[in-house]
Amino acid sequence: MLKRRVEEVHPTPVDMPGVQGVAMRLLVGRKDGAPTFAMRHYTVSPGGHTPRHQHNYEHEVMIMGGTARVEYDGAFHDCAAGDVLLIEPNKMHQFVNAGPQDLTFLCFVPVTFDCGKPTPGS
Amino acid sequence: MLKRRVEEVHPTPVDMPGVQGVAMRLLVGRKDGAPTFAMRHYTVSPGGHTPRHQHNYEHEVMIMGGTARVEYDGAFHDCAAGDVLLIEPNKMHQFVNAGPQDLTFLCFVPVTFDCGKPTPGS
Repeated sequence: MLKRRVEEVHPTPVDMPGVQGVAMRLLVGRKDGAPTFAMRHYTVSPGGHTPRHQHNYEHEVMIMGGTARVEYDGAFHDCAAGDVLLIEPNKMHQFVNAGPQDLTFLCFVPVTFDCGKPTPGS
Repeated sequence: MLKRRVEEVHPTPVDMPGVQGVAMRLLVGRKDGAPTFAMRHYTVSPGGHTPRHQHNYEHEVMIMGGTARVEYDGAFHDCAAGDVLLIEPNKMHQFVNAGPQDLTFLCFVPVTFDCGKPTPGS
């Protein structure tokens, strides 16, 4: 059985246009044989943010720690640990760390999109 | 945007053969428009356990609190908060609360299996 702890997985800095201070741990992904979806853990440093972007697949998110200001489809939402979000396909979205602590969250994606292309970061 | 807190979702007792002391919160599911996978939150009371069963779709699990003894494909694994598990399709598995506190975990499933049947609890 695949069994690992979050802190055992090496965090990879996310190097994309529009990203600041974000690291990703791929907890369960395609290389592990995940059949349908991937589990990723993100850490956003104070002052950091994910890219403001959209794509034609969804995210399901569980905020694990810290606070976020989330832009979604033209509106802003204050989020904290214990909040669950569904980012629907083709909706513009961005996660901004809104506090002095690390923002951490789980973010799930399907492992493929567009009829079989591997999803980035899965 | 779908945004909800875990504690706002009503827990439903899981009524299946072989289950004891388990409640499920469907955090993001088919009725919410989840395209590919569903997010569920489980609480297993002290002395409780999920069914010992198998099925032809996977689970991805994040242990959130408490401790579990997980049976998987003939072996037993001690698990605690922060552990991530991939339960592969067609592997016999069971989650037993191994401690005096509630065991809580997130468990994700694909929303369909067998070429389009709705996955139970999704």
